[in-house]
Amino acid sequence: MTDTSAKATVGIGLIGSGFMGRCHANAFAAAPGLFDLPATPVKAMLADATEEIAQSGASALGFERATADWRSLITDDAVDIVAITAPNVLHEPMALAAIAAGKTVYCEKPLSTTAASARKMTEAAEAAGVVTSVGFNFLRNPMIALARDLIASGEIGEVTGFRGRHAENYMASPDAPHSFRTDPQGGGALADIGSHIISLARHLLGPIAEVTAECRTIYPDRPVAVGAAERRPVEVDDMTHALVRFESGVSGSLEANWAATGRTMDLSFEITGSRGAIAFSQEHMNDLMVYSGSGAGAGYRRIEAGPSHPPYDRFCPAPGHQLGFNDLKVIEVAELIAAHAANGSCMPDFREALMVQETVEAMQEASNTRGWVRL
Amino acid sequence: MTDTSAKATVGIGLIGSGFMGRCHANAFAAAPGLFDLPATPVKAMLADATEEIAQSGASALGFERATADWRSLITDDAVDIVAITAPNVLHEPMALAAIAAGKTVYCEKPLSTTAASARKMTEAAEAAGVVTSVGFNFLRNPMIALARDLIASGEIGEVTGFRGRHAENYMASPDAPHSFRTDPQGGGALADIGSHIISLARHLLGPIAEVTAECRTIYPDRPVAVGAAERRPVEVDDMTHALVRFESGVSGSLEANWAATGRTMDLSFEITGSRGAIAFSQEHMNDLMVYSGSGAGAGYRRIEAGPSHPPYDRFCPAPGHQLGFNDLKVIEVAELIAAHAANGSCMPDFREALMVQETVEAMQEASNTRGWVRL
Amino acid sequence: MTDTSAKATVGIGLIGSGFMGRCHANAFAAAPGLFDLPATPVKAMLADATEEIAQSGASALGFERATADWRSLITDDAVDIVAITAPNVLHEPMALAAIAAGKTVYCEKPLSTTAASARKMTEAAEAAGVVTSVGFNFLRNPMIALARDLIASGEIGEVTGFRGRHAENYMASPDAPHSFRTDPQGGGALADIGSHIISLARHLLGPIAEVTAECRTIYPDRPVAVGAAERRPVEVDDMTHALVRFESGVSGSLEANWAATGRTMDLSFEITGSRGAIAFSQEHMNDLMVYSGSGAGAGYRRIEAGPSHPPYDRFCPAPGHQLGFNDLKVIEVAELIAAHAANGSCMPDFREALMVQETVEAMQEASNTRGWVRL
Amino acid sequence: MTDTSAKATVGIGLIGSGFMGRCHANAFAAAPGLFDLPATPVKAMLADATEEIAQSGASALGFERATADWRSLITDDAVDIVAITAPNVLHEPMALAAIAAGKTVYCEKPLSTTAASARKMTEAAEAAGVVTSVGFNFLRNPMIALARDLIASGEIGEVTGFRGRHAENYMASPDAPHSFRTDPQGGGALADIGSHIISLARHLLGPIAEVTAECRTIYPDRPVAVGAAERRPVEVDDMTHALVRFESGVSGSLEANWAATGRTMDLSFEITGSRGAIAFSQEHMNDLMVYSGSGAGAGYRRIEAGPSHPPYDRFCPAPGHQLGFNDLKVIEVAELIAAHAANGSCMPDFREALMVQETVEAMQEASNTRGWVRL
Repeated sequence: MTDTSAKATVGIGLIGSGFMGRCHANAFAAAPGLFDLPATPVKAMLADATEEIAQSGASALGFERATADWRSLITDDAVDIVAITAPNVLHEPMALAAIAAGKTVYCEKPLSTTAASARKMTEAAEAAGVVTSVGFNFLRNPMIALARDLIASGEIGEVTGFRGRHAENYMASPDAPHSFRTDPQGGGALADIGSHIISLARHLLGPIAEVTAECRTIYPDRPVAVGAAERRPVEVDDMTHALVRFESGVSGSLEANWAATGRTMDLSFEITGSRGAIAFSQEHMNDLMVYSGSGAGAGYRRIEAGPSHPPYDRFCPAPGHQLGFNDLKVIEVAELIAAHAANGSCMPDFREALMVQETVEAMQEASNTRGWVRL
Repeated sequence: MTDTSAKATVGIGLIGSGFMGRCHANAFAAAPGLFDLPATPVKAMLADATEEIAQSGASALGFERATADWRSLITDDAVDIVAITAPNVLHEPMALAAIAAGKTVYCEKPLSTTAASARKMTEAAEAAGVVTSVGFNFLRNPMIALARDLIASGEIGEVTGFRGRHAENYMASPDAPHSFRTDPQGGGALADIGSHIISLARHLLGPIAEVTAECRTIYPDRPVAVGAAERRPVEVDDMTHALVRFESGVSGSLEANWAATGRTMDLSFEITGSRGAIAFSQEHMNDLMVYSGSGAGAGYRRIEAGPSHPPYDRFCPAPGHQLGFNDLKVIEVAELIAAHAANGSCMPDFREALMVQETVEAMQEASNTRGWVRL
Repeated sequence: MTDTSAKATVGIGLIGSGFMGRCHANAFAAAPGLFDLPATPVKAMLADATEEIAQSGASALGFERATADWRSLITDDAVDIVAITAPNVLHEPMALAAIAAGKTVYCEKPLSTTAASARKMTEAAEAAGVVTSVGFNFLRNPMIALARDLIASGEIGEVTGFRGRHAENYMASPDAPHSFRTDPQGGGALADIGSHIISLARHLLGPIAEVTAECRTIYPDRPVAVGAAERRPVEVDDMTHALVRFESGVSGSLEANWAATGRTMDLSFEITGSRGAIAFSQEHMNDLMVYSGSGAGAGYRRIEAGPSHPPYDRFCPAPGHQLGFNDLKVIEVAELIAAHAANGSCMPDFREALMVQETVEAMQEASNTRGWVRL
Repeated sequence: MTDTSAKATVGIGLIGSGFMGRCHANAFAAAPGLFDLPATPVKAMLADATEEIAQSGASALGFERATADWRSLITDDAVDIVAITAPNVLHEPMALAAIAAGKTVYCEKPLSTTAASARKMTEAAEAAGVVTSVGFNFLRNPMIALARDLIASGEIGEVTGFRGRHAENYMASPDAPHSFRTDPQGGGALADIGSHIISLARHLLGPIAEVTAECRTIYPDRPVAVGAAERRPVEVDDMTHALVRFESGVSGSLEANWAATGRTMDLSFEITGSRGAIAFSQEHMNDLMVYSGSGAGAGYRRIEAGPSHPPYDRFCPAPGHQLGFNDLKVIEVAELIAAHAANGSCMPDFREALMVQETVEAMQEASNTRGWVRL
């Protein structure tokens, strides 16, 4: 009988223990069992708004220590990677402090509340040469990697059109209340979920050159809190429809909609080319629909995720068993740890997230000026 | 043994014996067996470009007489309804002549090559008080009637968003040749098939108030004919993406695309409301997807066409057997004959088709001016 | 201006003007406009139970004459093809009379109420050398022809398994009343609709060698008529599950179910082979799902019916527009007229329908003896 | 800053570090972050065939100690739960040893290689009063819980029919080699994956009373190993089709098929009732299709997994994000730890797994005797 020996470790400092904090913690716990990591993550410290919340979160999520002072977490010697899942408005000061401390920074999306702030963070990170990563986890789906490969390999020919959307229904009721999501600073359907389809569009088809859009508020006011009688005006969009033109010349449309009754996770796209097409919806995230060929036997085919689509094989040796949402976060974390160890790049990094945010703001501007805006 | 007695008849004069001409002829043949018509259509006369073509068409399609002179068809006493399936550029003179002769006019879409011409035809028809009908046959689908009823009844609450599209692939290849469809006068994807989704949008949600759009030519030139080496520049759009705002305040997007590889008949929409949603694609024209309800058991449900969705019951007494494209034309013809007999209205009439054409032109103007255009 | 000349005609005598009678009449009306027929059908005479019904049917369906005496129809000189849509119990005497008169016989399925009777009819027809056809119209679907071609061409390799079903819901309620369908003589789910999936299985995979089955009556009694308080015991199956072994060695399962709540027309199958697979449901009769290939890009693809799948091209020159149920009957009638003119064979003929009926009876016997039955 | 305090722990001893061993280890790692467990699992010891394999597995999967002697693991004081993922033939001796040591036993399916062996294990466990659990993880899906609740609540009325299947393609090629799966002792498609659909059928509809079946070997021989030229006869089924009758009177069919080209994880069923129906396939494991209602608006609706379907809420607070296969194992482990702590029952336990195995053997016997077998 032998004691098993430990390999190199990497200390994780997590800020925030809400939904996304839990996601991070569980992903760091699961990654070493699934991936051959260069270093084993150690859940070193968790910070949250109060000592109590932090301690309870640390206990539930398996962190060694807890604190109400996120600055002390960032400078703690046991912390190598700072994972930020705090409210958006705090992303900038936290990231700047972590960059100053030379730590790898793993930040939830959106990178910040404005593109200007995101630019400041990006430039600081690049100047300091630290590794950064932003949590656009949907990009980690093996089927998205397959889509990207198919496009790059010319399987669908010259790309001609794009139709993308992120539609959910969590604000579909006029009585869904205000929250940080409806904060004019960084809120609204476009910033909140439109950023996902924008990041996906860029990931697959490259930079967007020009946009026009209509950002629309469906319900003029909402309750100030769950069940409250008092209502406050809404200053953000519930629904944005946009036209986009990529630098490659491809044109298309893009929608962000959190009032899409009937849709829970329609992060979807259809990309058409001169010889084929690809369609996808996160509603069936293990399927990629691909059209190629011609004649009597051509048709959209459903490719199911399997071990031939890495890193699916890390999770399961047989096809069809399906990955879930949380597995995407595990992939993200595994790539982050690899980048941290190699001091390499981890896409999407701060700069990529900045580009997404600038696209969001260009759409907002286009809606205000009722014209096209170049990026 | 008895001779079966005849009831009132209505004489049909058909101009054109191509694909649409055949559709019309077959629909007139089938309608009396399926519907209780106020009058039995008699295939009186067929006109086409030459005597030979006309005669051969008349023989194949069961018309009593044939002619190369469409003017004589229009004024013939045996002809009560003039059905126009000639090239778009001829719609105006043919319709004006038929109106002048006091005939009911049944014209294929688009009504004409320009909105100005369509307006002239509309005003002439209204002044003369003749019955008119335009062949937007997709509107005749019982599932579209169901969608309209569900919206009108408030089943999905206040309508909030629209996403519509007509995408096919018949011009997806750069080597698909020029034809009347690429004629700058009335051609292009938007005019050719975008008109279908515009008419459907209006049918379900009412008038469109404002639009912006990008009309894009994907392939700068195309062969002058099938297999020809010579290529000629393309002056029409292959693909249009538009944003629309309805008079009701509903906003959304609309796409017309004849280069949509992988799509054969994606005339589709998703309409969201505060309490439900409706989705449809002509690819499965016998299904209507409806979302209503809330909580753990809510979900999009597939309603299959059946006898509870008239006039499906005219075709089949049992659900699930499915109607086909040609059946939609039979429904159109049956409604036309009823309107003719009652001297009543038959939607979509010339005015409705004019509104569609004005929407097409507004989108083209918006694309040129790169701004929004009010209708 | 010219009178169009007539070509050779073929006189149709239709017995029965119910749902199937109407289907036949409309199919005979539509066929000449869609197909290049060797002869034009003339709706010569219609027979039904009474003079009144016959006359009203003839008038509605466009028959020249009407009669309450089906025997006189059969011997009438104007009648070349006798189309039988009368109650099943009358199929035998009518067909025998038509055979005796040397007429082409077009009989609705099931061929008769028992295999013994069907055998008598088949042998008479073969002895007389008349053309016969039985209305298994679902076999006429171009997508079924495609499936058959793919199997024959080896596209899916060696066929290994079959899973077939015909499930509808028209008797799902315990209060669905008795009708001719529940007549112990030839009734029940297996005979009524199981015959469709049996004919389809044979069409695609050849003869069935051996079966076992459980025929089950779900509701012990049913109302004697719609809304009646009085109930009568049910003596036929509502649901049959069977195991089948084809002569080729392929094995599988087969279900007939008229109490399948939620299903309106699930005439469906999945056929697997060593290199591919094919799946189909009549619920989306214009789609054929085909799996072939291997590796990271393999998947079931949806082939949509189009002009490359004849005789779809007769109905529409563009793919994706979709055929409907009634179009299948038109195809059936066109093939019948061609066979009649050539005095050739028209599959499925009486013998094929007899084989189907023998399979039904073998399953019933297997259910009674609780063992396997060889055919 | 505080150290986080530990709560009660439960020691895990894992036997086997292959695919299923990894699944177990990762599930034990993830469960505490997702569930409020009564005790925190500690990965105490891992056993495998050799010291080397065990040590390497322990290191990769985070176990404290490693051993090549599974008996010492079972009797180790630090081990409270023995998780068995060793070859099927070893399940019996391992489980009996663990039962003798009074440990909770968590065994992968199938429980053993024969029903007789499984019965011995079950009786020993019941006599000793230890907690047992068998890894039929597909039952843990929240959508299966929803299906069961809907059936129990009468949502679909009286259940009338069942159609179930587990079809995959991993042995579809004649060149897929022999492995433990083709061992006549406990191997074959029916035992390997048919057991999943049998357990699911029992979970939803209760005990199966009677079966008949055809177990068929498609390819008479297979390579002795991957790529080997030498081939050895196959003595197990590649495909079993069965008819089943439940104790409740419901009848139906069931298929096990590992040669189902085109299917990767079609563990699926359709259950029909007098007022509704439910359909499911593991291929889209986050969807449950439910039919209820009647009339013009009825239709199968797609219910997407969300927080209203516990314990989905443990993984994600928003609907539509989707669980994956590995999450099912986490749910299984969480329920196991709760049962262990309460010394309560954890379904499916050994007895339930024994019933599944007896059903498998009844089907094999029925295939041999070509008749029905009562359970």
